[in-house]
Amino acid sequence: MSNVTHVRHQEHYSVGQVGPMEDWDAKLFVGRELGFTGMEVSLNRLPPGQEVPFLHQHKLHEEMYLFIGGQGQFQVDGEVFDVHPGTIVRVMPEGRRAWRNNSDSELWCIVIQANLDSLTGQDGVRLGEALTWQ
Amino acid sequence: MSNVTHVRHQEHYSVGQVGPMEDWDAKLFVGRELGFTGMEVSLNRLPPGQEVPFLHQHKLHEEMYLFIGGQGQFQVDGEVFDVHPGTIVRVMPEGRRAWRNNSDSELWCIVIQANLDSLTGQDGVRLGEALTWQ
Repeated sequence: MSNVTHVRHQEHYSVGQVGPMEDWDAKLFVGRELGFTGMEVSLNRLPPGQEVPFLHQHKLHEEMYLFIGGQGQFQVDGEVFDVHPGTIVRVMPEGRRAWRNNSDSELWCIVIQANLDSLTGQDGVRLGEALTWQ
Repeated sequence: MSNVTHVRHQEHYSVGQVGPMEDWDAKLFVGRELGFTGMEVSLNRLPPGQEVPFLHQHKLHEEMYLFIGGQGQFQVDGEVFDVHPGTIVRVMPEGRRAWRNNSDSELWCIVIQANLDSLTGQDGVRLGEALTWQ
């Protein structure tokens, strides 16, 4: 599955399907299809022996890498460390980063970008109305 | 595993471990431990038959729900739909939302908050220097 399917836009939400992670393509950005304006989201699946073939930085965005399957390595500013399911990396804009799959199985990673220092603090408001499931 | 472990802070990145999703607790926020300033991140695991017991909205943040395992239901503004691995929901601040696990297996969801309209456009900068893995 190479795309976001079954996209549906409503007044206060959008929903789409990318399929189970076993079906993900190499890199799928979902922000545009679903209308995100505060974060960029990509779903990543790196086959055995492959690497992101370049280092990159950001201008203003911090980036989160959440690894949910497989084994690999990450590097920032030339420092290399192992990643595996449940490894979370936060990278500042200046960090010179890349990652690779040096194992013999697939490697999955969810990557989110957001503007550094843009969070406004505690933001959720719990509602008192009854919750029903029709 | 109830917490972020093996946290390490470097000049341009932080890294920590939350373990494989089979070991996640009900809800684990990782933003504070890892120093995120542009997004709030929580890892969620809802046992069979359980629900988020209230509706909530946000003041300024959009929210992403990425379901990576299990089956359940989501509701926004009283509208109910099914979620399964690969369902992504973007909710605007105003959306009155909750989700539940109405199946007989675990349900996993990654939830990210970021400030609405805070993205600054194309932000990544590809570097020309050689990428090496020592």
